[in-house]
Amino acid sequence: MDSKIMAAAAKEYGTPLYFYNEQIIIDNCKTLMSMPNAFGLTVRYAMKANSNRSLLKIISSQGLKIDASSMNEAIRAHLAGIPHNDIILTSQEAPINDELKALEEMIKQGLKYNICSLQQLYNIGDFASQNNVTLAMRVHPGLGSGESATRNTGDNYSCFGMHLSDIDKALEYAKSKGLVFDLVHVHIGSGGDPAVWQSNIDHELNIIEQYFPDAEAVNFGGGFKVARMPDEKSANIEELGKYAKQRIEEFYKRTGRKLKMEIEPGNYVITLSGFIITQVIDKKRTGEQGFNFIILDGGMEVNTRPLLYAARHPFYVVSKSGDLLYSDLDKNFKGTYKAVPVGRCCESGDSQSLDSEGQSVPRIMAEPEIGDYFVIGGTGAYCSSMSPMNYNSHVQAPEVLSTKEGKLKVIRKLQTLEQIMENEI
Amino acid sequence: MDSKIMAAAAKEYGTPLYFYNEQIIIDNCKTLMSMPNAFGLTVRYAMKANSNRSLLKIISSQGLKIDASSMNEAIRAHLAGIPHNDIILTSQEAPINDELKALEEMIKQGLKYNICSLQQLYNIGDFASQNNVTLAMRVHPGLGSGESATRNTGDNYSCFGMHLSDIDKALEYAKSKGLVFDLVHVHIGSGGDPAVWQSNIDHELNIIEQYFPDAEAVNFGGGFKVARMPDEKSANIEELGKYAKQRIEEFYKRTGRKLKMEIEPGNYVITLSGFIITQVIDKKRTGEQGFNFIILDGGMEVNTRPLLYAARHPFYVVSKSGDLLYSDLDKNFKGTYKAVPVGRCCESGDSQSLDSEGQSVPRIMAEPEIGDYFVIGGTGAYCSSMSPMNYNSHVQAPEVLSTKEGKLKVIRKLQTLEQIMENEI
Repeated sequence: MDSKIMAAAAKEYGTPLYFYNEQIIIDNCKTLMSMPNAFGLTVRYAMKANSNRSLLKIISSQGLKIDASSMNEAIRAHLAGIPHNDIILTSQEAPINDELKALEEMIKQGLKYNICSLQQLYNIGDFASQNNVTLAMRVHPGLGSGESATRNTGDNYSCFGMHLSDIDKALEYAKSKGLVFDLVHVHIGSGGDPAVWQSNIDHELNIIEQYFPDAEAVNFGGGFKVARMPDEKSANIEELGKYAKQRIEEFYKRTGRKLKMEIEPGNYVITLSGFIITQVIDKKRTGEQGFNFIILDGGMEVNTRPLLYAARHPFYVVSKSGDLLYSDLDKNFKGTYKAVPVGRCCESGDSQSLDSEGQSVPRIMAEPEIGDYFVIGGTGAYCSSMSPMNYNSHVQAPEVLSTKEGKLKVIRKLQTLEQIMENEI
Repeated sequence: MDSKIMAAAAKEYGTPLYFYNEQIIIDNCKTLMSMPNAFGLTVRYAMKANSNRSLLKIISSQGLKIDASSMNEAIRAHLAGIPHNDIILTSQEAPINDELKALEEMIKQGLKYNICSLQQLYNIGDFASQNNVTLAMRVHPGLGSGESATRNTGDNYSCFGMHLSDIDKALEYAKSKGLVFDLVHVHIGSGGDPAVWQSNIDHELNIIEQYFPDAEAVNFGGGFKVARMPDEKSANIEELGKYAKQRIEEFYKRTGRKLKMEIEPGNYVITLSGFIITQVIDKKRTGEQGFNFIILDGGMEVNTRPLLYAARHPFYVVSKSGDLLYSDLDKNFKGTYKAVPVGRCCESGDSQSLDSEGQSVPRIMAEPEIGDYFVIGGTGAYCSSMSPMNYNSHVQAPEVLSTKEGKLKVIRKLQTLEQIMENEI
């Protein structure tokens, strides 16, 4: 992290500030695009992670296509200049009436519709049949993996995709309408444990062999672990790709079918490119037996992930003049000062360091002065896009891109208080 | 709940929809305003719970004043027509430079500033001294209570207010500047356990006796428990008031000082007036061993409280034509159908029924058909004001008031997709 440019950005645009490093995004995209594969690879960016138009353009320029989670995301991607041909819609929505008409229009223009439920299939069946549109299907495999031990995206507790127990019914309906599924999709959640990835691939290829004779491509979803903290390990894209390649080649030898591979990373593309720059506005201590607290001018309203998921992010302390005083990634740091970084909301959970029971956990760092910058790393994904940004009537923080040429560029302006209220009557 | 008017509102304004019942707000305000007291009562609405301008006006018209948690909330209240004299600012912010100037201007116009840290005191000290402005102080008592067993608003894990260990330093500084604290504030978080309330009052009166010879009013904060579910019990405002009255009268007998009482309810004013009206857009089941799911067109992006705090809300199933098919408050319901109501976001935690470990919990209800309305009760507070409303690029839901005359009135329009993107460059 370049503390000088971050301090410069903070001075220029104020804090809190979402800061993105373009080069990191590009490098991540390149890694993903060069993933080993057997008969072709499509990388789709899961845009729910961060849907800023400028970022979509950068990612798209690297050859990635788009995974949209809602009709609105698909519209937003298209407005960013991405052709419908490059967008897949995988959604819990089940449009009817006007929304169905809008969806059909997008499908006509090339959008790939990924069927996730019987209802979605019934809604679109006649249209797809009449227009010879091929479909994708997201299958719920009945097993899962994820960051949370108890909440997986593929087990009984989650309802994403067409559950295996509904497959026969779905395929019977499809047959009656002459529908073709040329893409099969299984995503079981973030995690990226290689063993789980491998077993998911085996499982999915079996599903294709058993149920989907027309499938030409297989989508393994996302779920590539990103190491934000020094004690974590990122997924090894090359290793995962090698395994998938081998299995897809074996599938070819067995069946004569050449399957293209698709993946849908969100975190892997954008997480490490993002930093939230805040300023230390106050310091407190809760008595001798208590803890040190540093109060930041941005907390849960810019990054709710610690509160939602006990997510740990790397912290950096940067002096007013831009010197890096502390980095969580510096293993040689010897200090003993510990503090809990909290936000400015009147909410007990407004802390950037929480355990899974919601309790604040002090972290080692260099002691910042009031006015110093406190930077929260690994915040490119699911921060700007998934925050209660107007809580306590705070305005949505601006977004700034540090371009690959090293220039600062505002990609979203600071929201105004008037904007928060403009729909009130 | 009037299911007919809710169905009518849904048909007229679409779903998801925040729906508020004016009469319930008024009734709650009246209950609070008639709380027993010794030498006067000020009820301040904690506007972070819900800051909609129309709701602020209703609440204000009932005689309640305002508790603002940020400068922006204070500005917003004032823009809603509430005079600065009726606003107290209790914030984690510590304004400097231009923001300090803005704060000073508001203080000149009557805003009460509630000092929460040494830094805040140092920032405002000279101004307050030169302008003979009296101040309030929020004291951190070193003990707490709250909805969460582990995260309290008053113990070592929380840093709200001036910690007792800083009091001497604060008062010494105040003395050197000739500053006067005429209001003392202690808030230890939501809960409303009468025993905790009583011990907090005793504790606070002791603090006033020991440290604040100039205090004319005592603010006991909020924290009045609201029963959303049938197995919960709301705080008994009259009982709590009687206890406070007795203690304040004893304090008077002991010291000759007549203290006014202040309270700061948020939940109690607005929670039960609010309903989120959603529509069932899909139904799924995760196999024979799995669960029923009903997919709603509004989930975590309209109410994140289940995900954040495992909050339980009453559910209602309402037919397309407005018949109430199920109410969690109906103790005589005999059905056996169980389902997990989830939203439409591509997020494993997007469920309206989660336990404290984040696991979805099926709930008994009448089985809704696709197209029926599913209403989430007890959502007047901390829903519209504290949600990641644009996640998956969903637009912020509109707010509708059912007036005391029984008419429907839009108090916030549906956000547009263009508005989500309008600050992008």
